[in-house]
Parts: sequence; structure tokens; C-alpha cells
Amino acid sequence: MANTPSDFMNEAIRLARINVEQLHGGPFGCVIVKDGKIIAAAHNEVLASNDPTAHAEIVAIRRACQVIGSHQLTGCEIYASCEPCPMCLGAVYWSRPDKVYFAASRVDAANAGFDDALIYNEMCIHHADRAIPFIQFMQDEVQKVFREWSENNHSPGY
Amino acid sequence: MANTPSDFMNEAIRLARINVEQLHGGPFGCVIVKDGKIIAAAHNEVLASNDPTAHAEIVAIRRACQVIGSHQLTGCEIYASCEPCPMCLGAVYWSRPDKVYFAASRVDAANAGFDDALIYNEMCIHHADRAIPFIQFMQDEVQKVFREWSENNHSPGY
Repeated sequence: MANTPSDFMNEAIRLARINVEQLHGGPFGCVIVKDGKIIAAAHNEVLASNDPTAHAEIVAIRRACQVIGSHQLTGCEIYASCEPCPMCLGAVYWSRPDKVYFAASRVDAANAGFDDALIYNEMCIHHADRAIPFIQFMQDEVQKVFREWSENNHSPGY
Repeated sequence: MANTPSDFMNEAIRLARINVEQLHGGPFGCVIVKDGKIIAAAHNEVLASNDPTAHAEIVAIRRACQVIGSHQLTGCEIYASCEPCPMCLGAVYWSRPDKVYFAASRVDAANAGFDDALIYNEMCIHHADRAIPFIQFMQDEVQKVFREWSENNHSPGY
């Protein structure tokens, strides 16, 4: 296998196509590249594993981190067959790769029946207006924990 | 252990406090409740497991789904010590619990050094303006896969 961006994206798309037949989950694939080589790859496994977090990007990020032995993907590029959903976008920011390439858009995903666009909308609105109720209470109690944390630790957020 | 909302949140906060001492990750905890009982619980394990996706909510959602044997948390309530970050908020929507309770806010998390508020901002801006570059290409190629998917499957998006 060659190692151009098109080759890496073709591999992500090949992985996405697996689920058209096998239905381990939705038709999404992802590969993670470091130093010009694929170090992790995955397709969506939500249904096969009964795990709603098993999107291609999440599974690939988890695998790449095990390969690297770090919770950070510094120096890595992510190739995703579709624009990452909000969950996967969050995982991208927490894992901090250098760059993300994607093929389909959130609109393409919505047209195929997926909730990506809906969830993006829910992200940016107030708790009280969301489809799933979000209710805040006991804030004082947990602020004590954050104070204890800040007194005991000086590491950046992860 | 009793089974009021305060009891469940106290347990989530107790789990959050574990990391002030043990530093498996940030000071965050989560429990998931069904029929008045805790069916899954977790604290942040990002550092201990080298897994940037191992936030308390993600780990608890994955565990609860294994207990239930489904990728959906219908009938469940999530108690999180802090407002879910965008990644965890996405996981909430994909797992579809009935309700989410949280204690600390994203501002509290930011004050303790975590990127939650930053990532919320990145969610709502254009790709070109983001801190991590997001580059789209080969959209046509993967649209073929979505068409094949739509012709072969009639299930709702997951």
C-alpha cells in the first residue's frame, strides 16, 4: 500500500464500506497515520459490540494510543471517512493529533439517517432547550473536589 | 446506600475525588441509574489507561451498555460530577438515556485547568478557524458508500 493522503483516505473508505454488508454499525471508517504509516485503523462497531461510543474514530484513537503508549496523538494525522460527529470531535481535541482529514460531511451523514447534525445543534443551545433534559444540582459539593485537585496537582487538563 | 438523586450524585462526587489522590486522570466521576439502582459507575481513567476517551461518562456508558446488553440506555439516568464535555455529551446523545444530572459546570472545569469550554467553542465554529486543522477531500468517493448503505439498510442512525 502506498502512502499518499488519497491512499489513507481510500483505506478509511474501504473500512466504511465493510458495514454496508456486515452491519457492525454505521458505514464509517478511520485510519491514524504517524510518520507516513498507518498505526491504527477501525470501522464503526456500535452494534457488534453494544457500545454506542464505538465509532470508527473513537476505536482508532484508542488503538493508536495503545500503540504509542500515550494518551496524546502528537505527530499523528487522522483520516476519517466522514466529518467526525461531536463525540468524535471531542475525542480529537482530547487526543490532540496534528491534523484531521475527512471525506463526507455531517449533511451527508444526516441524509443517510444519522444524528450527527442534530447533535451538533444540541451542543450549541441551552440545557433547558435540549431534547434530553440536563439538570444541574449540588455544584457546591463538587467545587470542593476541584479545589482539592488544584491544590494537589499542577498538570495540564486531560 | 439510599437511592435519592442526592445519593447518586454523592457517589459520582466520591468517585471524582479518587483522582485527587490516585491521579488515574482528572477529578471526574459518573454513575448510571436504572429502576432506582446504580448499574454502572466510573471515574476518569485517561492517564491510568493511556486512553483519551476514558472520561468517567464514556467509561460508565460503555459499562452500562454491557450490563443492559444494548447500545441504548433507554430508561436510564446519568449522574455526572461535572457537566459532560462535548465528547461525553455526544456519547449521551448516541446512547439516549432519559435524563442527565450534573454538578459542576464547564466553567468550573475550565477554572481547574480542563479544556471543556475551549472544545465547546471549537464545536460551533468553522473548520478553517479551528485550533486543529480539519481538511475535507474525496467527498464524492464516500458518498457512494452512503448510497450503498441507504439501498441496503433501513435502520435508524446509530
